[in-house]
Amino acid sequence: MGKTVTIVRNVMEANERRAAKLKDFFAERRILCLNIMSSPGAGKTSLLERTLADLKNEFRMAVIEGDLQTDNDARRVAATGAQAVQVNTEGGCHLDGSMIEDAIEVLNLDGVDILFIENVGNLVCPAEFNLGEDHKISLLSVTEGDDKPEKYPLMFHISSVMLLNKVDLLPYVDFNLETASAHARKLNKDIAIFPVACRTGEGLSAWYDWLRAARAAKR
Amino acid sequence: MGKTVTIVRNVMEANERRAAKLKDFFAERRILCLNIMSSPGAGKTSLLERTLADLKNEFRMAVIEGDLQTDNDARRVAATGAQAVQVNTEGGCHLDGSMIEDAIEVLNLDGVDILFIENVGNLVCPAEFNLGEDHKISLLSVTEGDDKPEKYPLMFHISSVMLLNKVDLLPYVDFNLETASAHARKLNKDIAIFPVACRTGEGLSAWYDWLRAARAAKR
Repeated sequence: MGKTVTIVRNVMEANERRAAKLKDFFAERRILCLNIMSSPGAGKTSLLERTLADLKNEFRMAVIEGDLQTDNDARRVAATGAQAVQVNTEGGCHLDGSMIEDAIEVLNLDGVDILFIENVGNLVCPAEFNLGEDHKISLLSVTEGDDKPEKYPLMFHISSVMLLNKVDLLPYVDFNLETASAHARKLNKDIAIFPVACRTGEGLSAWYDWLRAARAAKR
Repeated sequence: MGKTVTIVRNVMEANERRAAKLKDFFAERRILCLNIMSSPGAGKTSLLERTLADLKNEFRMAVIEGDLQTDNDARRVAATGAQAVQVNTEGGCHLDGSMIEDAIEVLNLDGVDILFIENVGNLVCPAEFNLGEDHKISLLSVTEGDDKPEKYPLMFHISSVMLLNKVDLLPYVDFNLETASAHARKLNKDIAIFPVACRTGEGLSAWYDWLRAARAAKR
């Protein structure tokens, strides 16, 4: 296993170098870049659909969509009028810096204020690969259970924001917002936590205020 | 990247050798081994709690619980009276053959009819690592969306069974059972599909009948 570990570290180091260059690229252009991560089906695309529609008169936004297969999500977010490019990992479990390099060659980023990257649906591997983003954003659906921050600690440790999605389903599931929030804050005392329902729009104004502040900090 | 690919292939080949030995081990002892996989929070542990309780007078069952962190799940299934051992991957995104080798040294498998392996919550990576199991079982919660078989095709391509869990929440979510089933059958025409609600017990009798048939085929 010694050799394997060395090789894995080289892959990670190569990715870190790419991520550092991407960070510089976004900084020079004053683009706020956000890396959105969650389990499959927690609502990343729904969050983007809402956000792109509700803030379209306020910011110029673009999206990089990551999925194993299909361009369903790029088509969904493009329907809001935003620029979107789909990256298919062909089975790969996370996005890495080289995929973002390819995607930004396709996008026209002139004048873009916010670039959203929707990572592959996976609460484990994407957490280990920086993409040059300003912030990592994690979504947890209340249907997944309030023990998930404790069981998948790295994801919540490295995220600036945890969105607790699908709170419209709280009456029908066993999920304690306080328990999930306490676990997340134990891993990361500064994490911003927003209970939302992307289907109904409930709670999104707090997320939008966070976005405005993060965007302002980037100017 | 050429070197990386070679090393990854060696890791996969080493795992395949381990999985083949485990398969022989389970065959000699007539143990039905099932590898249960899903996204985080889709209900793997709840399925096991129900199954272990409902069939405890019919079969001797044991469980290997895989998680990044915590032994919560092993404690939950052990509460049913079943033998359980927790494997913590310490951040690793899937179980592999060497972890199963370690776990079966701890378990007393004398007279065990069915060994359940609950994999790490992840719809991507666990699909690539055989563990010597007779069947792969995938769970999809209806809260995750009916597009998941299309977007995570390998998982459903290799599974003998797809359990569509949390059907008690169908009135509150946008999920079409026919759409999800059609996508899964396109990937794998022989897949057995069982809509269930592990919280209420709804639909589990069809899953138990499948288990009885799979167990009988192993004698």
